[in-house]
Parts: sequence; structure tokens; C-alpha cells
Amino acid sequence: MQNFIFHNPTKIVFGKGTIETVGKEILPFGKRVLMVYGRKSIKQTGIYDRVINSLRSRGLDIIELPGVKPNPVLSFAMKGIDIAKKHDTDVILGVGGGSVIDTAKTIAAGMHAEHDVWDFFLRKRLIKKAAPVVTVVTCSASASEMNTSAVITNESTKQKYSINSPQVRPKTSILDPTALFSLPADQSAYAAVDSITHMLEAYFNNSEPDSPLQDRLVYAVMKTIMESTETILENPTNYNARANMMWSATLAFNGMIPLGLGKVGLPCHMIEHSLSALYDIPHGAGLAIVLPGWMRYSMEKNPARIAKLARDFFSIKEKDDKDAAAMAVESIESWFTSIKAPTRLSHVGISGSDINGIASNAYPLARIWRLSGYTLEVISDILSLCL
Amino acid sequence: MQNFIFHNPTKIVFGKGTIETVGKEILPFGKRVLMVYGRKSIKQTGIYDRVINSLRSRGLDIIELPGVKPNPVLSFAMKGIDIAKKHDTDVILGVGGGSVIDTAKTIAAGMHAEHDVWDFFLRKRLIKKAAPVVTVVTCSASASEMNTSAVITNESTKQKYSINSPQVRPKTSILDPTALFSLPADQSAYAAVDSITHMLEAYFNNSEPDSPLQDRLVYAVMKTIMESTETILENPTNYNARANMMWSATLAFNGMIPLGLGKVGLPCHMIEHSLSALYDIPHGAGLAIVLPGWMRYSMEKNPARIAKLARDFFSIKEKDDKDAAAMAVESIESWFTSIKAPTRLSHVGISGSDINGIASNAYPLARIWRLSGYTLEVISDILSLCL
Repeated sequence: MQNFIFHNPTKIVFGKGTIETVGKEILPFGKRVLMVYGRKSIKQTGIYDRVINSLRSRGLDIIELPGVKPNPVLSFAMKGIDIAKKHDTDVILGVGGGSVIDTAKTIAAGMHAEHDVWDFFLRKRLIKKAAPVVTVVTCSASASEMNTSAVITNESTKQKYSINSPQVRPKTSILDPTALFSLPADQSAYAAVDSITHMLEAYFNNSEPDSPLQDRLVYAVMKTIMESTETILENPTNYNARANMMWSATLAFNGMIPLGLGKVGLPCHMIEHSLSALYDIPHGAGLAIVLPGWMRYSMEKNPARIAKLARDFFSIKEKDDKDAAAMAVESIESWFTSIKAPTRLSHVGISGSDINGIASNAYPLARIWRLSGYTLEVISDILSLCL
Repeated sequence: MQNFIFHNPTKIVFGKGTIETVGKEILPFGKRVLMVYGRKSIKQTGIYDRVINSLRSRGLDIIELPGVKPNPVLSFAMKGIDIAKKHDTDVILGVGGGSVIDTAKTIAAGMHAEHDVWDFFLRKRLIKKAAPVVTVVTCSASASEMNTSAVITNESTKQKYSINSPQVRPKTSILDPTALFSLPADQSAYAAVDSITHMLEAYFNNSEPDSPLQDRLVYAVMKTIMESTETILENPTNYNARANMMWSATLAFNGMIPLGLGKVGLPCHMIEHSLSALYDIPHGAGLAIVLPGWMRYSMEKNPARIAKLARDFFSIKEKDDKDAAAMAVESIESWFTSIKAPTRLSHVGISGSDINGIASNAYPLARIWRLSGYTLEVISDILSLCL
């Protein structure tokens, strides 16, 4: 176990009926609230009214910023920064999933910067100050509600990049599992893929040879995500399944899983960012394609960890590491297929002739994220195994 | 899954060599430090010098309060409160295990109270303010370094009672696994018993019928504690085993395990408090006696959860709930025996004629903790199954 610092002061308010507390939870952070949200869904589900009523009941001033789209874009966040500055906003409230929360975080950091907010994403500047962020979660996958990251696509340069700073960690996040009841089947499935990949990237890509506690925490959360998702796809309003999935998704990427693992790389996320930046496919769908391909590539040189997953998690008895690893890839791929996630580039209309373009887009991010060994050629080889 | 609020802002600084950072970590909270510790061990191990040097290097003023004993007592904490008030202390630093940290927390709360600090333990008063607490952990069991509890024995009334308040949650805790290298075998074993019991009390005594994620988290952490402890008893300076145990013990009782379980009771702790209040036996030793006895009592009326532990954790195939539960009790008791923990009252010199006295001592705490169903008779019946 390697040295670590863990400090996650986000307050989680979890359960049925908690959306009604959002006004009370925001009050300590200020009066002028910029409410960021997506397009139609929160109005259709009534969450919009529940949030607005709660904010009004506490006498908060509300400025609304609707229209965040999946794979959220920089131009929209910059519009939000202008509005937040103009209204001298105290608090940025994100009501939505990862796209909305990441946009809220970007606005929170950008409104206190004197320079282009994109400099944070290029890692040219450090975030020194941000407005407090509060969230109401309506899609559980990113764990953005309890972590320090945000991902935004610069649509003019086709760069899907990220920030990572304790300054943008939400102060309070409200997780009401009933808000997930209307989440469509495809998004529920992609949420599972995203959450599982968050953990498996830590499980596979770390610099610690042996980490029994962290491995077991991965198994515990991953098993719950798979089991809950299967129930959710049969019965989208099963409260306990939605609740177990919601909290599991938060734990999967709130910083707890990689503790003691040393440096953890996220190569699947790196490559997937290019897929969604270039083709605007859902992030979870892209991960369901990249993760098995990355595993097929990695098991040739380093099958041990993948074989460990095979034996510990999938109860595969095979003794040869390469064979066991191959069976783990099959198990994951077939589970993704069972929840109707695409698992090959061809499933989303991407062909071999597109690989060079994707790899060229991904490579600069590999450099920014300091993923050593991920040359253009390696990225292309991995993508070839995703065809 | 039931509604919950989770907000654990303690900063954890974990790993080899982190004790040297204590001065830096304290600095944000003030200059005048009351350093609370036990008797000889931190001087023998060199931890005392490492802490003092780090505090001095940051120019902090140090007032020392040595002499906390296991099963820490109220009179000592009250002495600490007087000293803290007299020196207008900014920060209370606990360097030790649960006894030291709990004493530090009691001083932190007591120094800002105008009344008898014991009123907090009797739940007559709420803690409204406390001095910031920082800890350097030298025995991992209580998780006091990352939670809101403290347990103190009022030696004149023989009451071992607790407080529970976010005000006394440590701001920063330093966990250096090498500090555990010199922990004797018996204390290492009792630490495992205490940590496991913290989780099993939540596992058995909650108001939520079905909690797959939380169950799996218990298994993950419990397995790691058992495996690490076995290694530690063979090789007390195995870093990875000490590290896995140290972080597992924190997770076992930092509030994460019972999330979503509703009201969680701690009847084994309640009864054990009387054993250590009356007989001054180590807390972990007392729990190793009470937990199997409590399980034997409970499996008669409600074997289902104990049978679930048998099947999920101990891989017991038995289909009958009562039989499976009985096998789980045997498994736990035999593991406690294997690490040389006592498992019967007779092992610590307590006999049947003592039961009435113990039950009479325990019953008022059952009332204060609102453990319904724990009448004098029930407590006596459980104790009889511990003989």
C-alpha cells in the first residue's frame, strides 16, 4: 500500500425526498444561485419544480441556465461563466448528471479566473479559487457529485479534456434515487459501464503490486452495480436497485477506490474521450467498446491482473494467466452485450479507416495525462482490437 | 436502502514517514498545542521524538499531557480540560490509539463547556463547540481518528459512556503504519476483534432488511482485517499487512459501513463497556467474549442475518438457518481463539455470580443508547451465553 492523502469533505444527502432540502443546503453558501441543467428531462419528471420550489422557499435568487447537452461543450460553459460573473453569483447549482455537474464546476472555476478557462483544461494554469458548487444528481455514473474532476469538450478543437481540483469539489450533493426512475434503459446501462470502468482502470493501471483491500472494495461495488443494473433494466422504478446503483456509482469514483494504489492511469477514458469528442457518442457506450479492446491489448504483455479479476470476481478456475484473462474479457464483453451496450466500434458506425484520426486526437491527451507508453502506435493497436 | 447523510471531512494523511508532517498539518488550526499521549510506548518507539521535532520545526507551542491509560478515565480528561483552559490551547493533539484520541476529544469538547463535561456523556447536553482535534494514530481499532465518537469511563460511578458529535471529529489524522510495528500481539489481536465487531454490529443490528452493497463492503473489509491480522501475528513488521489493517480499521467505523442501514444498534459494545468499566479488561478482549455470546442469543429468535454471514462470508453451505448461524458463531469464535483472544467470561476470571452486577451496570447504557428490548433479563441471558 502506497502513501496517500484522502480528504473528501463533500456532504452527501441521500434518499427519497431529499431534493426538497436543496434550498436549505445551499443557504450557507450564499443567496444568488446559478441553476445549471440540461434540456427537457427535469421539467418532464417534475424535478425542476421540486428544486425551484425549495430554492424559493428559502428566499434564494435564481438565475437559470438550461441547455447543457451530453458531452458538454466549452462554448456553453463560457456562456455560463459570463452569466455567473454578470449576476455576481454566489453558488453554482448543477441539477443533472455528469455533463451538467461538470459544466457547473467549469463555470465555478471560470468565473474567478482572469484568463481563458480552457487553460485549466490544458493544465497551463492551476485553479486557485472557485464558487461553491452544489448538485442534485439525476444520472449516477460520473461520481462528479463527490469528486474533483470535470470533463468538457472544446468543440472547435475537438478536444475532450478534464480539470481536477479540490476547488471544484461539490460542497453538498443531493442524491435522490427516485430521480433516476425515468432514466432510459440505454443511459442506465451506460452508467453501469462508466462506473465499472472507473474502478477497473484503478484495478488494472496502478503502480502498486498488491492491494487486497482495494481489490475487494472493487469487487464489492462492481458486483452491486451489475446486480442492480440487471434489476433496473427489468424494473426501472425498483427503489433499492436504483439506490444501490446510485451510491455505488459515487463510491466507484469518489477517490476511495484508488487509495494506496500509487499513480493510477485512465487509458480507457483517454481513448474514449476522443470517440465522444469526434463522434459525439455517449461516454458509457464508448467505454463499453474501449475497455474490452484495452484488455485484449494488455493481456498479451501483462495478463496477471486481468487473470486475477477472472479468478477473484468471475470465479474462473483456469490456471493459465493468458487464458484466464481472455475469459475475463469475454465475461465483461458479454455482460455489456447483455445490457445492450455496444462493444465494438462497428456497433456505432466507426470503421478501421477512422482509427488514425481517433488516435491522433487521443495522443495529445495521453501526453497531458502523462500516460507513459501510450504512443500513437499503441493507441492505434488498441483501437484495432475494438473494431 | 434508507435515507442517510454522509459528511466526513477528516483529512487522512496515510503512509510511511507521515508522522513528520504533523507540525505542518496542525499549523492551520493554531499555535498552542496540547499534546495528549499514553505512558511509555511512544517514547520507546521514537514516535514521541518524531512528533515533538515536527511540532518544533513549525514553531508550535507544546504543552504535554502524558499518562492516558487504556479504558481512559474521566478524572484524567478533566485534568486535561483544566490544563487546556489554563493555557488557552488552540489544538488538541492525540498521539496514540483510541484511548488517547477519545481523551483528546473529551478535552476538546470540555474546554469550551461551562458545565461538567460528563453531562455530554449522559446526553444531558449537546456539544456546541470543541477545539480542533488532530491525531497521530499508534493503534488502529477504534476508528476514532475519523469518526465522531469518544468513550470515557467515569471511574467513580463505573460508567463507561460515550459522546457522538461532529464537533469532535478530528480535522486531520496521521496514519503511519510503521507506528504499529511495535504493537504487541495481544493488542494487535484485540484491534482486529474491535474492528470486526464495529462492522458486524451494523451488519446484524439495523432496521434495513436488504443491503447488498453494505453487506459486501463488510465482507471486503472484514476479510482484509482477518488476513492482515494473521500475517501481523507471524510478522509484526510486515508493512503491507499493517497498512491494510490500519486503513481497514478506519473504514470499519468511520461511518461508511452503516450508510443506508437506518438505525444501527451496538448491543455488544453496550455490554462490553460494563465488562471493561467493572473489570478493566481490554475492550477488544471483552468484545471477543460478548460478540459470540450475543450471536448465540440472537440466533434462537432471528437466525437469518447470522446465517447470511455464514453463507456469504464463511462459505458455509448449510441450508437450515439456525444450523448455519450456529456454524457462523463457531467460525468467529474459533478465529478469535486462533488469534489468542479470550472468548468466554471464564477466560478473564469472571464467573456466573458476576452476571447480575454486570447487567445492572449495562442496563442504564442500554437506555441512554435507546437499545430497545435490552432489559436486565435479556442482558443477563446474553451474559450467561458468554460464560
